[in-house]
Amino acid sequence: MNTSVLRTASRHLSKAGRPRSLRTVRGYATFNWEDPLAASELYTEEELAIQETARQYCQEQLQPRVLDAYRHENYDRRILEEMGELGLLGATIEGYGCAGVSTVASGLITKEVERVDSGYRSGMSVQSSLAMTAIHEFGTEELKERLLPGLAKGKLAGCFGLTEPNHGSDPGAMETVAREHPTKKGTYLLSGAKTWITNSPIADVLVVWAKLESTGKIHGFAVERDQCPAGTLETPAIKNKTALRASITGMIQLDDCPVPAENMFPEVQGLTGPFTCLNSARLGIAFGAMGALEDCLSRARTYALERKQFKGNPLAKYQLIQKKLADAATDATYGTLAATQVARLKDAGKATPEMISLVKRQNCDRALANSRILQEVFGGNATSDEYHIGRHVANLFVVQTYEGQSDIHALILGRAITGVQAFV
Amino acid sequence: MNTSVLRTASRHLSKAGRPRSLRTVRGYATFNWEDPLAASELYTEEELAIQETARQYCQEQLQPRVLDAYRHENYDRRILEEMGELGLLGATIEGYGCAGVSTVASGLITKEVERVDSGYRSGMSVQSSLAMTAIHEFGTEELKERLLPGLAKGKLAGCFGLTEPNHGSDPGAMETVAREHPTKKGTYLLSGAKTWITNSPIADVLVVWAKLESTGKIHGFAVERDQCPAGTLETPAIKNKTALRASITGMIQLDDCPVPAENMFPEVQGLTGPFTCLNSARLGIAFGAMGALEDCLSRARTYALERKQFKGNPLAKYQLIQKKLADAATDATYGTLAATQVARLKDAGKATPEMISLVKRQNCDRALANSRILQEVFGGNATSDEYHIGRHVANLFVVQTYEGQSDIHALILGRAITGVQAFV
Amino acid sequence: MNTSVLRTASRHLSKAGRPRSLRTVRGYATFNWEDPLAASELYTEEELAIQETARQYCQEQLQPRVLDAYRHENYDRRILEEMGELGLLGATIEGYGCAGVSTVASGLITKEVERVDSGYRSGMSVQSSLAMTAIHEFGTEELKERLLPGLAKGKLAGCFGLTEPNHGSDPGAMETVAREHPTKKGTYLLSGAKTWITNSPIADVLVVWAKLESTGKIHGFAVERDQCPAGTLETPAIKNKTALRASITGMIQLDDCPVPAENMFPEVQGLTGPFTCLNSARLGIAFGAMGALEDCLSRARTYALERKQFKGNPLAKYQLIQKKLADAATDATYGTLAATQVARLKDAGKATPEMISLVKRQNCDRALANSRILQEVFGGNATSDEYHIGRHVANLFVVQTYEGQSDIHALILGRAITGVQAFV
Amino acid sequence: MNTSVLRTASRHLSKAGRPRSLRTVRGYATFNWEDPLAASELYTEEELAIQETARQYCQEQLQPRVLDAYRHENYDRRILEEMGELGLLGATIEGYGCAGVSTVASGLITKEVERVDSGYRSGMSVQSSLAMTAIHEFGTEELKERLLPGLAKGKLAGCFGLTEPNHGSDPGAMETVAREHPTKKGTYLLSGAKTWITNSPIADVLVVWAKLESTGKIHGFAVERDQCPAGTLETPAIKNKTALRASITGMIQLDDCPVPAENMFPEVQGLTGPFTCLNSARLGIAFGAMGALEDCLSRARTYALERKQFKGNPLAKYQLIQKKLADAATDATYGTLAATQVARLKDAGKATPEMISLVKRQNCDRALANSRILQEVFGGNATSDEYHIGRHVANLFVVQTYEGQSDIHALILGRAITGVQAFV
Repeated sequence: MNTSVLRTASRHLSKAGRPRSLRTVRGYATFNWEDPLAASELYTEEELAIQETARQYCQEQLQPRVLDAYRHENYDRRILEEMGELGLLGATIEGYGCAGVSTVASGLITKEVERVDSGYRSGMSVQSSLAMTAIHEFGTEELKERLLPGLAKGKLAGCFGLTEPNHGSDPGAMETVAREHPTKKGTYLLSGAKTWITNSPIADVLVVWAKLESTGKIHGFAVERDQCPAGTLETPAIKNKTALRASITGMIQLDDCPVPAENMFPEVQGLTGPFTCLNSARLGIAFGAMGALEDCLSRARTYALERKQFKGNPLAKYQLIQKKLADAATDATYGTLAATQVARLKDAGKATPEMISLVKRQNCDRALANSRILQEVFGGNATSDEYHIGRHVANLFVVQTYEGQSDIHALILGRAITGVQAFV
Repeated sequence: MNTSVLRTASRHLSKAGRPRSLRTVRGYATFNWEDPLAASELYTEEELAIQETARQYCQEQLQPRVLDAYRHENYDRRILEEMGELGLLGATIEGYGCAGVSTVASGLITKEVERVDSGYRSGMSVQSSLAMTAIHEFGTEELKERLLPGLAKGKLAGCFGLTEPNHGSDPGAMETVAREHPTKKGTYLLSGAKTWITNSPIADVLVVWAKLESTGKIHGFAVERDQCPAGTLETPAIKNKTALRASITGMIQLDDCPVPAENMFPEVQGLTGPFTCLNSARLGIAFGAMGALEDCLSRARTYALERKQFKGNPLAKYQLIQKKLADAATDATYGTLAATQVARLKDAGKATPEMISLVKRQNCDRALANSRILQEVFGGNATSDEYHIGRHVANLFVVQTYEGQSDIHALILGRAITGVQAFV
Repeated sequence: MNTSVLRTASRHLSKAGRPRSLRTVRGYATFNWEDPLAASELYTEEELAIQETARQYCQEQLQPRVLDAYRHENYDRRILEEMGELGLLGATIEGYGCAGVSTVASGLITKEVERVDSGYRSGMSVQSSLAMTAIHEFGTEELKERLLPGLAKGKLAGCFGLTEPNHGSDPGAMETVAREHPTKKGTYLLSGAKTWITNSPIADVLVVWAKLESTGKIHGFAVERDQCPAGTLETPAIKNKTALRASITGMIQLDDCPVPAENMFPEVQGLTGPFTCLNSARLGIAFGAMGALEDCLSRARTYALERKQFKGNPLAKYQLIQKKLADAATDATYGTLAATQVARLKDAGKATPEMISLVKRQNCDRALANSRILQEVFGGNATSDEYHIGRHVANLFVVQTYEGQSDIHALILGRAITGVQAFV
Repeated sequence: MNTSVLRTASRHLSKAGRPRSLRTVRGYATFNWEDPLAASELYTEEELAIQETARQYCQEQLQPRVLDAYRHENYDRRILEEMGELGLLGATIEGYGCAGVSTVASGLITKEVERVDSGYRSGMSVQSSLAMTAIHEFGTEELKERLLPGLAKGKLAGCFGLTEPNHGSDPGAMETVAREHPTKKGTYLLSGAKTWITNSPIADVLVVWAKLESTGKIHGFAVERDQCPAGTLETPAIKNKTALRASITGMIQLDDCPVPAENMFPEVQGLTGPFTCLNSARLGIAFGAMGALEDCLSRARTYALERKQFKGNPLAKYQLIQKKLADAATDATYGTLAATQVARLKDAGKATPEMISLVKRQNCDRALANSRILQEVFGGNATSDEYHIGRHVANLFVVQTYEGQSDIHALILGRAITGVQAFV
């Protein structure tokens, strides 16, 4: 665990009276609507302290920026550095300047970031779960030592190029190729296009998956922007997005972009590489989506208590409103328990990709469905972006869709349950 | 029916081979996915011609503008004039330069406008169903003759001020007041604030509902902007909306704004006045929402046919995709039939407000639910505004919410069904 | 129209003050929760009179019997005769002792029968839409004259053997065969098994679809039980059904059962024959399911008004209850309008099979979903069969499933919408 | 833990190769569709052994009886004795011949019983969580020692009389009264009626809640049938139930039924008493419903693999089928994790009634919804009771309804979340 987090976390622990989710009043447990099934009981003191650190940062530093960032599609590059300073990037990695915390702690960080905005979480996930995990799991020791510390500190920005314009749910059909340089030994030339790549316009290190021309097998490369000759790498931003506007998204266009062989991941080929990273990211999403949902719930609850309609009653007094709140609280706590279970299993070496498909799918589906229903609580005022709910709703659609659309994960599960595939 | 529509419509009728929804091939009917239950069989030739005129205008003149308008919250004031020219404004009104078409024809116009954008439809609905209907139903003959022709031509822009910051679903609790001028006989002074008022920043004629201070009863006033002394009427725009960004929305702030007694609607008091207008608008929404849904369906179908995933199959080949399309087509055609039925009943003097609550609620609910499901067909590409689906999804949430949130209409229906009210 | 219906209907028409769904009170229309969108306005006086006749019979003669019939799986064979007497069987057929009413009128009859019980409606549908339609559409003139009058009167009971134990959704794979008698010219021998055949145990005339051994093509046969030698035809009842217990269901087991060539339908082959009959039946189901749903709604409404909980309020006073009622009323009226539209199109020669798939699917889906939600209104009392709701819920599951399971119709529609099939 | 369970459990533990839910194959975890998120990892070896014991008994002894019991509403009284023998009754109670296992273990027993049938589980729950818990928590020591051992062994049957014909969701309005005997000191006379009481017709010990006439406060009484004079206690069975037919249900009719003061629970009054018992039962239901759902899933999966439609493909090959299975597996595992969490909290003294409302509601809602969707997999064959799915579907509706209908629990949660009650 890196020192910065540690410091903050200990400071926090020493605060007397820190609210725990399950308060005991005169010997009796009381219900806490923010943690209805007391998931916090499953976390260690350290994990709770890390969550609190992340929460404080997110609420104090990110929340005030998000409205403007979302309106103007204006991602603040300094956020990565701030996160790096706190040790939030690549937090599960041991060494290389990373915090080395549990998968559960990492999930709780993710949840706190997405409580503010799914776009902010996307930026962090791409850095941590995709770019850093790829390099950490598959890169040479030299590559790790060279790139991970900068990525961990947020000095370097990373991205992850898998999806292509014509190949979303079916990455195995990718068209990007890597061929050996005709004359320059030990160099590969990458050509092709990736799209919907979070962070690509600002990335210093671009993990790119391409098919080796000679074998047709997929391999991963860490492309360092500052090593690319002009005209071989372009990363135009995609603007006018309908969601995730607080993150920055773009394409990766490679035109015989030269990459040294040392930057190729030596031992992994096929989709094992990208799927390992995606599994890490997806589990983070399963936590994160619950953070966004909890924020929707909290805002809807506050609105329902403050807004009066019909004889001065708060909206909270009406059955149709209460049912929406109860449903959302239920799905948020169920999803948190399930993500926690998978994170614990992962740390114990017992998690499977299907488990991650399951929690990614369900938590995203339920976060989206409930956020939409909670949006109704706000009536016409939901149209004002200052109530934040519309932003979450728009974001959560994308969160449900990326890194495996809900139906795709249903078919992954269907195959695991029946032994029969139904993709085609 | 005004001459401009007539001209266009007749021109259209003379075109040979105009596609009708139910083609007969060698004596057998064939299924038309764009009109699955052949609703067009319920329309007169004139109604179909009017729809076609509106469709042509919308697809050729509005569709190309909508992306930019939505991105920049930039409503083009000329649209009202263009619509006026075609006779689309206040189309059901007889005389005063209006077209005098059937409620069904008016609904079909609405549907075509909302096929492009719910915001464009909102601008038209407010002008026609709210401002013009209010003046036509409740204004003095002098007022009608003075204001309706300009509104019908789109030379004047109208708006409708009912909702207040603290009173959305419960307009009876409004706080805006009208009091007799202490010295100037025959003049009322209006004070208060209205919000979420479509068109207010550009409106020349503002229909405003206020409580008469002396009686506490609600009355309507046609406020003419050019008659208001400086500082008595402000209509600031509301920006950064999460939806309906192609329409212009604002507040109405009245500070002892003087309005001549002749501009008060003489014979209606209480909520009868605004509810009459809302009923007209809501029926339009019931048609309009089906237009937006049909556009979502059409775009999703096209995308599903063009996008290939897994062994070169189009998405359209997959069961989970087909089910989404089938569900949407079903709800679109059911909703169109139901709205048509109510419109016919209305023209026959047999419609009731509850019927309108029913179709407004159901069509909005189903349009919203299906548009969200169709959005999934686009995967990550839904995040690009150029696919238009995200815009419809965001819009339809507001459409479901305004002019009676879904739950409010449920309670109106519940009361009608049981005889017991459950609002409080 | 046969004389018996005529008599009853006219008697009914002469009754002054018959309640129409859309009453006009002092010039204003009033809302009728039993017909929220005034579908009755779409029916002729004759159609309404027929509906009333059917309703009276069903409420007076069938309703009192259904509880006992359902409990004991005890279908009363006399019901067919009673229906025959009133002209309700094969009602759309002209001549042969049939009433020759419109498809709409026939749908309204169906609706009234299913208002009591889906099983009673199944018995009638099989007789009318399946057995009689098959013989009327495809039989020789001789066959029609010999069998239809008895079937129309309910003296003969009919059934329809298409589904086989291993082939439900895919009837084209049927295994039942017909081969020419090795020695007896002009006779076919039928062998195979059909299952889930309503009325089979009591059927006198069994329409059976089989593949001609020589060609592999499907042909239809009218098997007359009294002509079958012992041991060649068995029709064991299926007992302990979980639903539709007021109808009688069984198998058809054919073991070289001889059928004269004159009983084969001469001009139809393949699935055109059975699908024509199924289309007729499915449209009836689309009406019928709305009858069952309306009965659920009516019973839930009554219960909600009578049952008091919490400070003496009727359940009807609670928002969560009102929403259930409003939703059900909405779906019932939408479904009725849609079925009516297709029936009118059918009489005009403009209906397509896809339209019927659409209304069959949607009306069954919505009837089932709403009946289940309405069941909640009854709380624990729903467990008592005397409230009837549990019976409707159980029945409607089967109604949704038979004659095309919901998903199968979704794929039929998906194919019609996209031009691509997704069955396999 | 009582010796019988111990014996069986140990025998079981010694069996080599007992399948655990998370098998590890060559170092890698593999996905187990029967326990997708490896909930079994949360259980102790003893808990797993107890589950296995219960499972074996249920599958071997109960499953073969259930079809006939359900058909004929014929509960076998010996089941209580069999369960008693195994130590399954009142299993969490320490002493009095009870097993004294954890709440988790008790939940797992419940799950195994409901995997067979919700009615069998109801019978056990009433005995354990309601009757025995009431006596154990609130009875005098003498009462406990006299009654609990017989109830634990199943020699005595217990029931729990709270619900009345006119008061379901609002038990505080009960009408049953207890008054002091006018002459016989130390005796109360109970009068009133209870309904929908599981086990009442066979109960030897009837826990009855009644209002003390003198104070209006609710008190509990253990009524011993063999002490009641003829005519003072009747417990007629309710027949022709639409669900839970494998359990026995009845009324309790009390007519000045004398009960000795020692049989009144001395220290509890108001609804605290019954709600304590209900909380115990509801947590059991949260586990049990997951058992029923898992059985539905397992049967649907098997059917989907065995049933071939369209070109010989198993149903399992179709996307629409796979989605149903994936959804059900997800809800089953989420619900199991949540119930486990609350059970652990309960044993740690940290559970609150709202937590139990939450898991009871959600698990019942999801079990019901998914069982209905899984029923579709069976097509028409679901109508045969031999596929068991129709029975589960019918049962689960009641399970969702009793011990707090879903909406009531939503309002309990809504109140806990907002601090505002919306019951009236």
